Amino acid sequence: MTIDTLNDKLKFACSIAKSCFDRNMGSGTTGNLSFKHNGYLFITAGGTCFGFLTPDDFAAVPVDENTSLDAFTDTEKEYVKEAKTRKPSKELKLHRLVYDRLARDGIDGGAVIHLHSTYSVLWSCIPGLNPEDCVPEITPYLGMKMGPCGLIPYEKPGSEELFSTFERLAGDHYGWILSHHGLLTGGKDLMEAFGRSEELEETCKVAWMARNAGLLP
Amino acid sequence: MTIDTLNDKLKFACSIAKSCFDRNMGSGTTGNLSFKHNGYLFITAGGTCFGFLTPDDFAAVPVDENTSLDAFTDTEKEYVKEAKTRKPSKELKLHRLVYDRLARDGIDGGAVIHLHSTYSVLWSCIPGLNPEDCVPEITPYLGMKMGPCGLIPYEKPGSEELFSTFERLAGDHYGWILSHHGLLTGGKDLMEAFGRSEELEETCKVAWMARNAGLLP
Amino acid sequence: MTIDTLNDKLKFACSIAKSCFDRNMGSGTTGNLSFKHNGYLFITAGGTCFGFLTPDDFAAVPVDENTSLDAFTDTEKEYVKEAKTRKPSKELKLHRLVYDRLARDGIDGGAVIHLHSTYSVLWSCIPGLNPEDCVPEITPYLGMKMGPCGLIPYEKPGSEELFSTFERLAGDHYGWILSHHGLLTGGKDLMEAFGRSEELEETCKVAWMARNAGLLP
Amino acid sequence: MTIDTLNDKLKFACSIAKSCFDRNMGSGTTGNLSFKHNGYLFITAGGTCFGFLTPDDFAAVPVDENTSLDAFTDTEKEYVKEAKTRKPSKELKLHRLVYDRLARDGIDGGAVIHLHSTYSVLWSCIPGLNPEDCVPEITPYLGMKMGPCGLIPYEKPGSEELFSTFERLAGDHYGWILSHHGLLTGGKDLMEAFGRSEELEETCKVAWMARNAGLLP
Repeated sequence: MTIDTLNDKLKFACSIAKSCFDRNMGSGTTGNLSFKHNGYLFITAGGTCFGFLTPDDFAAVPVDENTSLDAFTDTEKEYVKEAKTRKPSKELKLHRLVYDRLARDGIDGGAVIHLHSTYSVLWSCIPGLNPEDCVPEITPYLGMKMGPCGLIPYEKPGSEELFSTFERLAGDHYGWILSHHGLLTGGKDLMEAFGRSEELEETCKVAWMARNAGLLP
Repeated sequence: MTIDTLNDKLKFACSIAKSCFDRNMGSGTTGNLSFKHNGYLFITAGGTCFGFLTPDDFAAVPVDENTSLDAFTDTEKEYVKEAKTRKPSKELKLHRLVYDRLARDGIDGGAVIHLHSTYSVLWSCIPGLNPEDCVPEITPYLGMKMGPCGLIPYEKPGSEELFSTFERLAGDHYGWILSHHGLLTGGKDLMEAFGRSEELEETCKVAWMARNAGLLP
Repeated sequence: MTIDTLNDKLKFACSIAKSCFDRNMGSGTTGNLSFKHNGYLFITAGGTCFGFLTPDDFAAVPVDENTSLDAFTDTEKEYVKEAKTRKPSKELKLHRLVYDRLARDGIDGGAVIHLHSTYSVLWSCIPGLNPEDCVPEITPYLGMKMGPCGLIPYEKPGSEELFSTFERLAGDHYGWILSHHGLLTGGKDLMEAFGRSEELEETCKVAWMARNAGLLP
Repeated sequence: MTIDTLNDKLKFACSIAKSCFDRNMGSGTTGNLSFKHNGYLFITAGGTCFGFLTPDDFAAVPVDENTSLDAFTDTEKEYVKEAKTRKPSKELKLHRLVYDRLARDGIDGGAVIHLHSTYSVLWSCIPGLNPEDCVPEITPYLGMKMGPCGLIPYEKPGSEELFSTFERLAGDHYGWILSHHGLLTGGKDLMEAFGRSEELEETCKVAWMARNAGLLP
């Protein structure tokens, strides 16, 4: 599957979102995702639902204020102009901070996924987790795909307090659990960010069930 | 996604219903939903199944006995005339009472969703819940989207006793758990009612699992 | 939704099967279903998978040995002739016994569903269940739709021992749990048999979770 | 459903993969599957995702180094030539070892499925399992379809240590749980390998829940 053009990426982002929704990894209008393309950040608009996403549910935000539209085709320009009028998710700032972290690896594009998925929320309710490596590895996959998962203390969703706490504590991770809120992952493209969010939620699920069965140390 | 016309709303209502069914938030012929449009209430007919709903599974009921069909297009009129011959869900009266509550906020249209979803049923089995705020907030979303959830004592589904109990105890909530029966939410449109039912069921799910793991106070 | 012709029924049966499969109410090649039409019993063939069923996966069996094909249209006759060459599910005899029970209510057609669904299997592992009413009613729906559920002791699937045990103990129920095997329901048409299997599995699920949380008496 | 040609098999393999993904039996880019056809092994390429698989996500590997393309049609030849350029899953060696075991039964073609499914991973976390029959039979189906399940001690996914451990311990089973990793099954065709992986995961699920409810001896 080749995912190169803006249209490819928008369609794949909608497929990912629907798949997460259909598999109970988010509900209602929770969750948001974004990717970078030609110096623009395309992010789900506020109040949209992962179960029914279309390309018209994305807002376009220039990465730098004066990024031009020159790199887009004429058809794309029409789309981007309209997408610029839409209101981005209130977690936009959180996405920007993940892109800053990816940029430190030299990643120019990239993608970010945020889900209110059941088991990462539940896992964050356990007291005494290690903030630099908060999910135990029952299988080796989370380590192989993402490395240790960061834990960010609770602040109100979409608040400046959340953004500044995240900025201070994000460190060099590629994925985080926001306490009592959900998971957040970044990667070099949509597939990598998606693969990481999948592995993080599944690892939390397996760890949650193993813990309650008395099988974790 | 713009959802304006009667046809848009019928199609979106069918999509919501199928999505709830496919994600195990209702089974068989349980669950019903409605929305108001042009002074008519469109509600799923008795015995219909959320997994296979089409616009032909809705009954039309005038909000006031003498509401005319003038506001509908000719094509819509044909549809409404036929829909008036169908038998509405036996919980119609419950829906009407939720619309009365929404009207106190000045909401003229609105939508109502009722699901026999697993975790709201399970949560209602716990003794000693607070009837004015029966679901603990493990994440802040239920509070942000719906406010405190009411709890209605058990009465037989579709019975006058259920309707009068609900009328007496519904208060100023936007969502309720009917004990040993299911959830009920209202909102200014289908998306808002849906978002609230989603958040209510997910919060019950997370609360149920946290409680059984000994993580609730 | 009108489901009258042979083709309607075959298509609806495939939809039901896929829906059960997709919602984790059966896996692999487990589960079988049947309906009566024009004196013929149409039942899923042996080794078919609910996730990928087409009308070509049904076997046709005359209810009485000398039922003619006269009541079918020419196109249907072609289909039935081919369907008669297919091998019916090895649980055919179990279906026939459920039709015998439905016939005592004067039901001429009817439909039967058998699923190896997780929670009815799990519920049957609990010692000391009442064989004439084996599932507790946490909501009133199972009682409203099906009445008390019978419990049939374990015998090897597809064996004469299973058939004779079922014949002896089936009684006047419309639904049964076959111990360590799965659920079985009958109804006047596919929708009724389906609604009952749905309610039975969901009630087992809720009862299982309530029991393990210490909330059943 | 007839599944004979290369194209039939590729399409059916994609359907199986999507179905497993959609029912939470794998997540992200985990899982791989293969089948033999005309002396070639068709296996999912590295980094592909079961939720979005197309025939272009398969790599072709000759079973013996000098297998010719003569048995393929011209259209198929084009496809195979391109598929030979793709990188097979890093678990290819594991698949080859399962084909060796199938060959001992005289099976010439065959198929292999590997999933990181939740309950087979969880079950492998329980200490003291019997390595030659590691899953208890709560229903008789796993025994009927697959026989006893082998247990392979943990080695790093895709490593030579895993391959040599599997080769040494695989024995005469048709299915195995790789500790802290996932399940692996083989069969004479895709449907048989699929039916076995389904039954293995479902049996682990039922066993896991029965164990935690204190209902296993």
